Amino acid sequence: MDNTKAKVLVVMGSDSDLPVMQDCINVLKEFAVPFEVHISSAHRLPEETASLAKNASLKGIKVIVAGAGAAAHLAGVMASYTTLPVIGVPLSSPPLGGVDALYATVQMPKGVPVATVAINGAYNAGLLAVQILALEDPKLFQALKEFKEKLAEKVHSKRKELEKFYS
Amino acid sequence: MDNTKAKVLVVMGSDSDLPVMQDCINVLKEFAVPFEVHISSAHRLPEETASLAKNASLKGIKVIVAGAGAAAHLAGVMASYTTLPVIGVPLSSPPLGGVDALYATVQMPKGVPVATVAINGAYNAGLLAVQILALEDPKLFQALKEFKEKLAEKVHSKRKELEKFYS
Amino acid sequence: MDNTKAKVLVVMGSDSDLPVMQDCINVLKEFAVPFEVHISSAHRLPEETASLAKNASLKGIKVIVAGAGAAAHLAGVMASYTTLPVIGVPLSSPPLGGVDALYATVQMPKGVPVATVAINGAYNAGLLAVQILALEDPKLFQALKEFKEKLAEKVHSKRKELEKFYS
Amino acid sequence: MDNTKAKVLVVMGSDSDLPVMQDCINVLKEFAVPFEVHISSAHRLPEETASLAKNASLKGIKVIVAGAGAAAHLAGVMASYTTLPVIGVPLSSPPLGGVDALYATVQMPKGVPVATVAINGAYNAGLLAVQILALEDPKLFQALKEFKEKLAEKVHSKRKELEKFYS
Amino acid sequence: MDNTKAKVLVVMGSDSDLPVMQDCINVLKEFAVPFEVHISSAHRLPEETASLAKNASLKGIKVIVAGAGAAAHLAGVMASYTTLPVIGVPLSSPPLGGVDALYATVQMPKGVPVATVAINGAYNAGLLAVQILALEDPKLFQALKEFKEKLAEKVHSKRKELEKFYS
Amino acid sequence: MDNTKAKVLVVMGSDSDLPVMQDCINVLKEFAVPFEVHISSAHRLPEETASLAKNASLKGIKVIVAGAGAAAHLAGVMASYTTLPVIGVPLSSPPLGGVDALYATVQMPKGVPVATVAINGAYNAGLLAVQILALEDPKLFQALKEFKEKLAEKVHSKRKELEKFYS
Amino acid sequence: MDNTKAKVLVVMGSDSDLPVMQDCINVLKEFAVPFEVHISSAHRLPEETASLAKNASLKGIKVIVAGAGAAAHLAGVMASYTTLPVIGVPLSSPPLGGVDALYATVQMPKGVPVATVAINGAYNAGLLAVQILALEDPKLFQALKEFKEKLAEKVHSKRKELEKFYS
Amino acid sequence: MDNTKAKVLVVMGSDSDLPVMQDCINVLKEFAVPFEVHISSAHRLPEETASLAKNASLKGIKVIVAGAGAAAHLAGVMASYTTLPVIGVPLSSPPLGGVDALYATVQMPKGVPVATVAINGAYNAGLLAVQILALEDPKLFQALKEFKEKLAEKVHSKRKELEKFYS
Repeated sequence: MDNTKAKVLVVMGSDSDLPVMQDCINVLKEFAVPFEVHISSAHRLPEETASLAKNASLKGIKVIVAGAGAAAHLAGVMASYTTLPVIGVPLSSPPLGGVDALYATVQMPKGVPVATVAINGAYNAGLLAVQILALEDPKLFQALKEFKEKLAEKVHSKRKELEKFYS
Repeated sequence: MDNTKAKVLVVMGSDSDLPVMQDCINVLKEFAVPFEVHISSAHRLPEETASLAKNASLKGIKVIVAGAGAAAHLAGVMASYTTLPVIGVPLSSPPLGGVDALYATVQMPKGVPVATVAINGAYNAGLLAVQILALEDPKLFQALKEFKEKLAEKVHSKRKELEKFYS
Repeated sequence: MDNTKAKVLVVMGSDSDLPVMQDCINVLKEFAVPFEVHISSAHRLPEETASLAKNASLKGIKVIVAGAGAAAHLAGVMASYTTLPVIGVPLSSPPLGGVDALYATVQMPKGVPVATVAINGAYNAGLLAVQILALEDPKLFQALKEFKEKLAEKVHSKRKELEKFYS
Repeated sequence: MDNTKAKVLVVMGSDSDLPVMQDCINVLKEFAVPFEVHISSAHRLPEETASLAKNASLKGIKVIVAGAGAAAHLAGVMASYTTLPVIGVPLSSPPLGGVDALYATVQMPKGVPVATVAINGAYNAGLLAVQILALEDPKLFQALKEFKEKLAEKVHSKRKELEKFYS
Repeated sequence: MDNTKAKVLVVMGSDSDLPVMQDCINVLKEFAVPFEVHISSAHRLPEETASLAKNASLKGIKVIVAGAGAAAHLAGVMASYTTLPVIGVPLSSPPLGGVDALYATVQMPKGVPVATVAINGAYNAGLLAVQILALEDPKLFQALKEFKEKLAEKVHSKRKELEKFYS
Repeated sequence: MDNTKAKVLVVMGSDSDLPVMQDCINVLKEFAVPFEVHISSAHRLPEETASLAKNASLKGIKVIVAGAGAAAHLAGVMASYTTLPVIGVPLSSPPLGGVDALYATVQMPKGVPVATVAINGAYNAGLLAVQILALEDPKLFQALKEFKEKLAEKVHSKRKELEKFYS
Repeated sequence: MDNTKAKVLVVMGSDSDLPVMQDCINVLKEFAVPFEVHISSAHRLPEETASLAKNASLKGIKVIVAGAGAAAHLAGVMASYTTLPVIGVPLSSPPLGGVDALYATVQMPKGVPVATVAINGAYNAGLLAVQILALEDPKLFQALKEFKEKLAEKVHSKRKELEKFYS
Repeated sequence: MDNTKAKVLVVMGSDSDLPVMQDCINVLKEFAVPFEVHISSAHRLPEETASLAKNASLKGIKVIVAGAGAAAHLAGVMASYTTLPVIGVPLSSPPLGGVDALYATVQMPKGVPVATVAINGAYNAGLLAVQILALEDPKLFQALKEFKEKLAEKVHSKRKELEKFYS
């Protein structure tokens, strides 16, 4: 993979979403996947949002990750302007705890899918982007396998510790 | 009011929404308010949807009514391109019964309001449009007052009928 | 617009609702729209609530904004006594987080619409009132356009800042 | 109890509510409790609704039963105009199945209680009215005791039948 | 009313419910209605709970108020052993916020009503008990009227204060 | 296992619950586990319900299965009178689809567990009873293993069929 | 019961679940039931999870308790590999408060039951395990009876205290 | 793309899921993407499910689509055994309408993402798989662009038809 050109476009509706969306950025860094980050509101900056989505594939972007809360239209709007896979991260906010964002992100109409992850699941959004990119990148594929083993290892070691304690 | 130029723009996401949205059209006809009807999907026809919203005020449109179901972004997308009041009608659909559409329509971010009515409340969406237009149209204001009286009258007469029966 | 006579009537069910409803008042001030503020409970002061609504149009009020929580009837009760557009703000409260207020505000019966905004969406309620008033007030219409541009500008500038940081 | 003067006032928002509310009427008849039935919409006939509630105690009414669906304000509005106990019956309707009516009926503010029964629980609303009236009516109290025994008897006999079948 | 013999039986599932249920006790004291308070769990002390309910009317109790959370069976169990009116107070608890208690209290089967008030609505439960007792107690009825006026007065005075401030 | 004495007590709140609860009876028959079936309402026949639960272990019952809908207290009431494991089956009913029954069955307080299965999951309730009884019954344990293999076999054979069709 | 060999297998998805699951461990200790504790994620350590479940009965385990949050698959995955009774504890987590875990634990398909307890109901999960083991262990059965009496006693004594205070 | 070797693995929990999952198969056929279809229950056939997932990438599979209802673990279980992107389709079923399946599919823990589409959104699941495959297949990418244009065209032509009718 050419590490100088962004492969993933990370978009969020507001800078207040950054603390959660940072998890996504961290995963991409961890796997050394080049990315771009933008703030672009579907409702407050609709035309730039449209441009971002329309130009993404021309710039070499492969996957878009979009995080938004409440009536979370960002991922859906991005998806309406591109045929690249769009991953949606519903963000929780106080009154409804993110169910509103989940429904607004996942319940897309026939023909315009959004690959939705858990509420506030920015980490998994980044990981899913890596999984998609790894399909044609053997080194990334190998890195994912090692990541999965380390993930298991981590649970495993906690398990061992606990067992010592309880037996 | 000039009855030859559309004052209300009625948009819906799909022609399958017409049976419910017809209620809105009927109210507008009842009050002789000129209107236009469009099918335009926020997700499947995003650029025409944007154009519709952006050009609405130039064409003399005063109020937009947008009906959509599921991840119902239509009203929000329209609102992002115009400063005209946008009335959103969340439409029910089988799995979640319209709660998804309600949340996706009403939970808009600061700066981009959508005036949301009840799930499938297309009738009230039309009526709300009339109420807004009547603010500067004394004849329409008078018609609304008469409508309200007839509404009361209708309940009243049913009440009378029932009372005969039960006393 | 005559800036000495109130055009918007802001009502709330209790003085504990003021911190949220203040957002609405701020928008109206920002756009120099004259307004009145009242506390009037649909359930604890029903007759004054009815009077407020009935006399509103006679006093020159054009739009009513009503905020209430729980079994939030205030907007609906106001709407039952007037043909002016009534904007409802469902207010969140601990046990159910505002879903109760949302349903009680938005699910109005045929013939008596309430233009409902997001839970705690007092800011957007005020803005919607301005959008309605702007239909016959070119200066206000222009002010809204500038507001929308500034809104975009603000997101845009945050976007630029972030981009510097991440590229 | 004087059987010629209505003791219970049964109100419903629309004649389409009658099939469910008939259960309430049947209980009252079963216990020979005199009653009145009215259709009166909180939103479409607000002033007559207010009058009904305000005059109820003067006419000798002891308990009010109010059934309504969706943004079900009827019971709450009645309760705001009287100190008589008001029993609310949330009625189910398609999109939200009656959760809207339940929340709008039960979540009343401090100072204005509504005694809420199950969604579509008009039968129990009538029975609760009888239980309240029976507090000062020994014959009615005795009738309720017999009713409770018969209720148990009915379950008991079905139980016996089933046991024959399965043992 | 004989002020030496308890007229209202207040029951709660646990002593941790007392802070909320105290509101009910306060109303009863405010109206000088004699009452008894018990802790009795439907699930942990079922037989004493049954006895409490069965003996209530013999002891002169007129109304039962039962508060419980989660799978809140207390009010329903009391109602199954008596024909006195039982008022249920669903209490909120962290994971589900009281929706569980609300459903478990209000959705009672045909023949066994529970008069349900708002989640944590202990104050209104006490007030509803007073409203029921007032049906045959003219002094209490008068006290309720005055209470209602004071309630309106309180909102009214806050309204006046606010109006000074905003006009 | 002695096949003449009931090991499982199946209780349901009403004979209208039999069509769903029949699934439970069928599993018990399939595994030749002796059982008793009763109709006994927690609310309409509280004392017989209490007796049923209290006497169950004396009669040799090992597991209780209780199915009920709405404010489904039956399983909880049974559990309050016995230390035998009680399996609760929440039954769906129209307005709330069984969420009410699920919450009322599963959200039991500390000290009185109910082993809750899926809404309308009577089949699994019976199977869970068999799994518990099999802990001390090697033949039943073996039968369960064969059942599990057949279950896999059935899915497996459908899989084979489908694969033929699609490849 | 042989107190040296584990009878209950307690599994949780992450060490962050330990504070809640400790309640389960405490009950087992209280009743001197030997147990094992493991951390094993259905999603991050699937093969060890499968092994744990498959080998449980061979090691003498009688009951499995599995606690997990969000898309809580742990109990279901364990149940898919064993015919031992599996008790599921849905654990609450911020955005959805545990409804997600409850649904993912309780709504199991025909043939693979999970005995679900309340959200965060680890205490009752342990107690249910004891109730199952007590079926063939007279001493444990007796201990449970005493536990139930003490439970009642505790509520009873709080009741007495309160009564002193309020009468 | 080599059209003889399956690129997409479509799995469903039961043959009763086929009518919905057929939509996914149709999209794959429409885009001439080779695929395999399997029935494999996470709970009833856990080991074959695990094998399917573990061997998928070795066989040349690039994307997995898994559809399941209720406590829908299938997608999550597949994802736990592979680093290929897994797309989950939550399937609706009567009592809870698919909210259970949605939560059980989307709320996955850190490290194991499932790309979730709408309830019953099998069509979009297939399309998302195509979008992912198209990233390295220019002909498929072109086909998607044409598909998106046809999608817009279809809405556009309905729009034209409607406009003729309403103006």
